[in-house]
Amino acid sequence: MSASATAPYELMYWPGIPGRAEHIRLLLEAAQVAYTDHSVAAAGASLVLSHISGKNTGTALNPPPFAPPILKHGDLLIHQTSNILLYLGPKHGLAPAFPSPPAVADTGPAVEDDGLFHVNQLALMALDGLGNEAHDTHHPVATGLYYEDQKPEAKRAAEHYRNVRLPKFLGFFERVLAGERSGGGEWLYGGRMTYADLVLFQCLDGLKFAFPKTLRKLEEGGEYAKVFGLYGRVKEVKSVKAYLDSDRRKGYSNGIYRHYPELEEDLD
Amino acid sequence: MSASATAPYELMYWPGIPGRAEHIRLLLEAAQVAYTDHSVAAAGASLVLSHISGKNTGTALNPPPFAPPILKHGDLLIHQTSNILLYLGPKHGLAPAFPSPPAVADTGPAVEDDGLFHVNQLALMALDGLGNEAHDTHHPVATGLYYEDQKPEAKRAAEHYRNVRLPKFLGFFERVLAGERSGGGEWLYGGRMTYADLVLFQCLDGLKFAFPKTLRKLEEGGEYAKVFGLYGRVKEVKSVKAYLDSDRRKGYSNGIYRHYPELEEDLD
Repeated sequence: MSASATAPYELMYWPGIPGRAEHIRLLLEAAQVAYTDHSVAAAGASLVLSHISGKNTGTALNPPPFAPPILKHGDLLIHQTSNILLYLGPKHGLAPAFPSPPAVADTGPAVEDDGLFHVNQLALMALDGLGNEAHDTHHPVATGLYYEDQKPEAKRAAEHYRNVRLPKFLGFFERVLAGERSGGGEWLYGGRMTYADLVLFQCLDGLKFAFPKTLRKLEEGGEYAKVFGLYGRVKEVKSVKAYLDSDRRKGYSNGIYRHYPELEEDLD
Repeated sequence: MSASATAPYELMYWPGIPGRAEHIRLLLEAAQVAYTDHSVAAAGASLVLSHISGKNTGTALNPPPFAPPILKHGDLLIHQTSNILLYLGPKHGLAPAFPSPPAVADTGPAVEDDGLFHVNQLALMALDGLGNEAHDTHHPVATGLYYEDQKPEAKRAAEHYRNVRLPKFLGFFERVLAGERSGGGEWLYGGRMTYADLVLFQCLDGLKFAFPKTLRKLEEGGEYAKVFGLYGRVKEVKSVKAYLDSDRRKGYSNGIYRHYPELEEDLD
């Protein structure tokens, strides 16, 4: 199947929360690409439900999606956050190009560039460590149960996350920024902003909402100065700033990042 | 950076368990591609530790990896399971090609094929739902704590996973196989085996080890006949079978998939 380069982008997600779709929105907004955000439409939720329905087996061109975010681009329909970012990034200057196909005889050897795999791995790291694991602190037993039914477990999980996992992940990104391949330490990869920077920004922003005291302490400690420097840098990118100041940017509530004061009350 | 097409593949992982590296091994074995598996060497663990050390900031060509599996191919070093699969799949006939770069004036319009994004999303779904979530049943509070320190939580988590999440994921893959895009229902995508099938096989194989009674019941119920049919089909692929019968295939123990009988004792 193929997606026409001129087809509009259509983003489908649950209404009312930034959620995982926020990573897609930030990429499109940073690149100043037009898109339709169906999550703000009255039928936004039912559109998602029709796609993830147990009766939907997809089409001749597309397998069914399991969960939102879902991106439609012409005939193409894809899901999974990191997968959508991978699709969009190289098209809009926020990631290296896809590797060239093998050289054919009359065009000479292709120059192979594998930078996209590094950007993809950095985005996957942030989504896993600073997104999914942060989410699991308030739902350690099961996503399908209420927070109220797993509060003692959440407290233990949050404590371990804040004290062990979070510093480990921040330390990793600090190392990436200290490394030569970052191209100077302002951005994660190759000396310019990629969608991996946008993902890291969004995860940090969500963490600041969920664990404000913890993040303040970590920032003030100075050990992750490059990471928090990147956060501030992304926030000031003109197109990103315009988006964050617009009413298209949704507030946090009961999504991936949730603020339960009791999960960091030892810092009072 | 670029990786020579003739450079050897080097896989780095923890010794003694199949773990997440097993998805990479299965791809390479199915495609009958030579590789060096450093996890079987005496220095396998220390090699991993040197790469993920808090002191490693990577090189001029590569950011540091956070965790294994790690793949080295010539000058290129990448990590994250789904990322390594994405790198290898199109090179070895186990996924559609990367999308063509935009057409240049004198070569006419490029034919764009986006099938790789579907294969990537199906692999991500299996890794998330049937790998990570299965792992979290025995470590719901924290990966860094012992199972013995989270047994009551693990019991609740496993019950929810077995009764709610697992059927939901199996139902999803059954729908994918029932859908037109599978190309006949023998394989997940496009009528031929891709690495997404290998990932689904490996996850089901691990689940059969971890929750033998649960999986037997689900298989005998007949509701996921296409999924279990695919499992049997992958197992009989000549190159896969040769690998599974070899001493290169490691036994399960204390990795992602663990067999704690108490986590399904209600099925006794």
